[in-house]
Amino acid sequence: MAKTDLPTGKKPKSKGTAPAPGEMPRTHKDEAARGAGKRLFSAPDLDLNSRSIVIRGVRPQVEHGRFPLKREVGDGLEVSAAIFREGHDILSANLLVRRHDEDTWRAAPMALVNPGLDLWTGTAVLTDNALHLYTIEAWTDVYASWCDEVEKKLGAEQDVTLELLEGRQIIAEAAERARGEDSGRLAAVLKRFESLDATGRARLFLDADLREVVSRWPDRNTMVRYDHEVPVMVDRVRARFAAWYEMFPRSQGTVPGKSATFDDCIARFPEVRAMGFDVVYFVPIHPIGKTHRKGPNNSLNAGPDAPGSPYAIGSEEGGHKAIHPDLGTLEDFRRLVKASHDHGMEVALDFAIQCSPDHPWIKDHPEWFLFRPDGTIKYAENPPKKYQDIVNVDFFSADWESLWHELKSTFEFWIEQGVRIFRVDNPHTKPIPFWEWVIREIKAQYPDVLFLAEAFTRPERLQMMAKVGFSQSYTYFTWRHTKGEFIDYLTELTQTDIAEYLRPNFFTNTPDINPPFLQTGGRPAHMIRLVLAATLSSVYGIYNGFELCEATPIPGKEEYLDSEKYDYKVWDWDRPGNIKDYITRVNRIRAENPALHELDNLRFYPSESDQVLFYGKMTPDRSNMVFVAVNLHPFQAADTFVTFPMDEMEMGGGDTFVAEELLSGRRLDWQGGRQWVRLDPNENPCEIFRVVRED
Amino acid sequence: MAKTDLPTGKKPKSKGTAPAPGEMPRTHKDEAARGAGKRLFSAPDLDLNSRSIVIRGVRPQVEHGRFPLKREVGDGLEVSAAIFREGHDILSANLLVRRHDEDTWRAAPMALVNPGLDLWTGTAVLTDNALHLYTIEAWTDVYASWCDEVEKKLGAEQDVTLELLEGRQIIAEAAERARGEDSGRLAAVLKRFESLDATGRARLFLDADLREVVSRWPDRNTMVRYDHEVPVMVDRVRARFAAWYEMFPRSQGTVPGKSATFDDCIARFPEVRAMGFDVVYFVPIHPIGKTHRKGPNNSLNAGPDAPGSPYAIGSEEGGHKAIHPDLGTLEDFRRLVKASHDHGMEVALDFAIQCSPDHPWIKDHPEWFLFRPDGTIKYAENPPKKYQDIVNVDFFSADWESLWHELKSTFEFWIEQGVRIFRVDNPHTKPIPFWEWVIREIKAQYPDVLFLAEAFTRPERLQMMAKVGFSQSYTYFTWRHTKGEFIDYLTELTQTDIAEYLRPNFFTNTPDINPPFLQTGGRPAHMIRLVLAATLSSVYGIYNGFELCEATPIPGKEEYLDSEKYDYKVWDWDRPGNIKDYITRVNRIRAENPALHELDNLRFYPSESDQVLFYGKMTPDRSNMVFVAVNLHPFQAADTFVTFPMDEMEMGGGDTFVAEELLSGRRLDWQGGRQWVRLDPNENPCEIFRVVRED
Repeated sequence: MAKTDLPTGKKPKSKGTAPAPGEMPRTHKDEAARGAGKRLFSAPDLDLNSRSIVIRGVRPQVEHGRFPLKREVGDGLEVSAAIFREGHDILSANLLVRRHDEDTWRAAPMALVNPGLDLWTGTAVLTDNALHLYTIEAWTDVYASWCDEVEKKLGAEQDVTLELLEGRQIIAEAAERARGEDSGRLAAVLKRFESLDATGRARLFLDADLREVVSRWPDRNTMVRYDHEVPVMVDRVRARFAAWYEMFPRSQGTVPGKSATFDDCIARFPEVRAMGFDVVYFVPIHPIGKTHRKGPNNSLNAGPDAPGSPYAIGSEEGGHKAIHPDLGTLEDFRRLVKASHDHGMEVALDFAIQCSPDHPWIKDHPEWFLFRPDGTIKYAENPPKKYQDIVNVDFFSADWESLWHELKSTFEFWIEQGVRIFRVDNPHTKPIPFWEWVIREIKAQYPDVLFLAEAFTRPERLQMMAKVGFSQSYTYFTWRHTKGEFIDYLTELTQTDIAEYLRPNFFTNTPDINPPFLQTGGRPAHMIRLVLAATLSSVYGIYNGFELCEATPIPGKEEYLDSEKYDYKVWDWDRPGNIKDYITRVNRIRAENPALHELDNLRFYPSESDQVLFYGKMTPDRSNMVFVAVNLHPFQAADTFVTFPMDEMEMGGGDTFVAEELLSGRRLDWQGGRQWVRLDPNENPCEIFRVVRED
Repeated sequence: MAKTDLPTGKKPKSKGTAPAPGEMPRTHKDEAARGAGKRLFSAPDLDLNSRSIVIRGVRPQVEHGRFPLKREVGDGLEVSAAIFREGHDILSANLLVRRHDEDTWRAAPMALVNPGLDLWTGTAVLTDNALHLYTIEAWTDVYASWCDEVEKKLGAEQDVTLELLEGRQIIAEAAERARGEDSGRLAAVLKRFESLDATGRARLFLDADLREVVSRWPDRNTMVRYDHEVPVMVDRVRARFAAWYEMFPRSQGTVPGKSATFDDCIARFPEVRAMGFDVVYFVPIHPIGKTHRKGPNNSLNAGPDAPGSPYAIGSEEGGHKAIHPDLGTLEDFRRLVKASHDHGMEVALDFAIQCSPDHPWIKDHPEWFLFRPDGTIKYAENPPKKYQDIVNVDFFSADWESLWHELKSTFEFWIEQGVRIFRVDNPHTKPIPFWEWVIREIKAQYPDVLFLAEAFTRPERLQMMAKVGFSQSYTYFTWRHTKGEFIDYLTELTQTDIAEYLRPNFFTNTPDINPPFLQTGGRPAHMIRLVLAATLSSVYGIYNGFELCEATPIPGKEEYLDSEKYDYKVWDWDRPGNIKDYITRVNRIRAENPALHELDNLRFYPSESDQVLFYGKMTPDRSNMVFVAVNLHPFQAADTFVTFPMDEMEMGGGDTFVAEELLSGRRLDWQGGRQWVRLDPNENPCEIFRVVRED
């Protein structure tokens, strides 16, 4: 109940809390005996007056400030709040922002934008990649309140002689607080006051410049702080805007049946970069266990040459801090990282907390594993399914702290090699407190590190991963297909509180997800899903093979036939039917249009066909406006009207404008919002329009 | 940032907090040296295992538990939450409720009602008039999880020999915790286990009765508490369900130009009770100041016989603890209170923190007032308006504590005379922390005391008064007229979070509000507004004269001509055109229909005329279902269809039912939801149907 004992708007202090019933002194006679620390509501440095200001309904917040908001460097953090107190006094308020590791608050003025709702807003630009905190301070603007009262009385021709004397007192107090030039100006005003008649005095005191000067010197003791400091994780921009390319390093070579090396991967970087990707994500690069190793297509008995699943981490050659010898050395890996940077990209590593039965931890730290009554370690199961090549660590063993620390140091090890992005495998099967702790610890040291959560699970858990710190989240995107599904899901992701903490990374496919739509829809289906992923979200990815329209499934399943997970592959990266040019164009369009760098500016607009999804993104200043029409059917052409939002585009309903179709380069001179599009899956399943206002 | 340092679902403890970065030991070697208090996340009495359970999205709450919810004795408190942890283990959860002044939690089991959303609910019945707290505890049901796994494996014909040994361990641990009969039962099961083969063992352990026994003895150390204790003010039922009658005591007599007495008021009680009222609310009963006394119709110069406004409190005869000598003595007042109880009613007193310039406080406690440069006290103003007969205390004077205490003791003084309801005048012009403090203090001592806030102000402030403790609130009801306005406003009041803390008391009129609709609409208008107030809200009131359809205004104003505020009145309580019989019937219908005792069960249903508002209230078990059709126009008859919600009434679309029209006593045999009503303002502006199912 401590919370409800505190008056609103007061910052809790360590000294003193609100009184228990009866604690308040019965008479005022013993007041002199009481120190400031015994006041009714603690906080000896605050004047009671100020504490009757209420600051509430402060937005945005995630679970009342329990978890950080997410923003990116350069963002304006807009905060709104209801701020009010009893009576008619005029208030002032500041939005305060600071880095969590610095003491000084930066203040941005807030403005009363809706008096009827007592609603204030303010914006602060976030310039640093660091965890920040924000709060609000408000105070009674005594002089503005005085001016307001006197103006009303003068308007009603009432006498204000006494009010002028009271005004002089307010200015005299401000003069005592003022420093520098203002100090002299206020002293001069007070001197001049003495020589004037009532009319002159009123004119002197109601002067706009004087109000400005006085407002600069409020009594800071009367300021009220909002009782929370709300955390905001400010990440680098790539957390929000990036195109990912996922690869199995061992399958980037040219020799069948043999592992490729990091050098083979480096050799592919120019091509990947040319397609417009920013992040190259590698599935686990560690030694792979031999015990119960899985063979092609997840078969139980691997032949002698089967490479095994890279997710069965650990062998006598090492564990999570080692590199599979076939791929190269740590030195080679460092070269890989450097090469990615040289190409303007970066490397993301998979982080999968699971062990092959051969992992060195089992010998070195048996205390980290759960042994069964027969002395074996329990392997991974989801009954009746069994994963015999994998055993799990026990996050709750007696020695859990050393395990958690080892996992943290594993992140640190790869960070020291230059890695700044981790894609985390199945985080929702590990304890939530672990993630909150380890991500907080890592980001306190390395704020530029990003974590992508592969939590394909129920919504509360998926969202929880984002709340406790993951920078990005895999989503249900691959399972959304109809117009209604896209509108519902993307509205939820971009227009609700979820957008405050969850960045959806839209993967078109993954080694585990070969969506039926791609299996059956061929090249147009790949083009459609690419454009959807790349323009609905600001961060998206493909898993290699997508550019080749490779989608051969295990019949009846959502899985790839002859998956790279259990085999070496050699790909012909230029094989006929590929959509590399299309991907290149789409990524270039993304790069060139700032509106597509944002997530929460997505809006859906009318199309008159259920088969056509129409949406757009605009920059706040409307200097960049992009609209996308997608035919959701991979075989049937669609002819329909779509409606551009002339109002939001800040045009009149009948205005003319130019729409550049960016995939084809066509230039369209259009008048009015309702326009005809024809989307033929074989030609142009999608169109992306940049609208230029004709001024 | 302390908040985000804590793992979710963990109850903060005074000992130890989460570590600062780097605080965690670097290796596990020094673990032996660390005591439980130094664990990664404090709380030495909790096993880490349990702490990976997340309890969030806990509803209902007001501002994350900052302010109490409001409920009434006998209510079921239904609480919902998302509860989950990593992996596939099965959880259990309890809703815990306790009085704030008792240590023992009562537990009510929660159930997983929506697995896809990890959503749990539980209900606890609130039996005491007291401030309560609720929270949630959850734990991993180790044995249920074990049974689930084993059943899946047996279904897939997998070997479970090891699992059975693990099961034995779980039961053995439960047996150690078990007491009484269960202890012996579990010991017997463990003994029997040894003599059985695998099939028998599985059958033994998967037995439903055994699961029940084991589930009674969870490891309490592994329980997780939700990290808040959410306050719930449980008031007596009259806080929600009552009919109020407001009167000026001095105008309840029979001699013109002379003050009536408390005995005259007592003489009126039988009539007021006969109309069905529960609360008789008296405007201030204290001595009235003489300085700047206001005359009839708020004129500046009162004649020698003008009684003055009862809101100009205080004269040489006393202040807020004194009684106006014309009304009677304190002894008479106690008789008045007793008489109200004898009639099944109670007295509500006005509490107006304002003083006439003659109030004894000014002499005895000049330190409580703000003096101007000329030595006068500032009188009340709302520039350019002036209230010369009233001066305000200064809540922020140096001696504020003694003032606040005097105000609290004023409440206590009247509570000692038997008063349990206070109607507070203009609370929004006094400091919010004062109200939170004084109401909390009073209710801790006298939980049956109720406070009605007269905060006719902007929504945030009006709502804030309810949040900080006021039991009921005046509303914007008198300014709502159209069908759309009623639906919007009542939906907000009954179906949003506002219903959790704000009880709307719908007054048809007040001494300060003579609505134009009543001024011009005559008798039908009074009947319409009565039925709306009495059936839309569960608590409502009228100000005397309403039953006589008295609505003569000061021309062009919302005020009463010759207001009682500045004069004595003698009323003919039986004058022609009165609606006392109608009020009596409406209040009897309220009393006899439990559905009308509730607020949040209000739902609107279709009527095919904009002039007709149609709505209903039902008890959860549908044993009482009441529907109200109101013609909102006081002159034009309305003929239209209304649609009864057959689904919600748990009937088929074409079923027959009986509708009793409770005002006229007509019995209607109807089939299907869509029915014709005719509402003639001169005959039946409103109809109230009780629906009886034909079984």
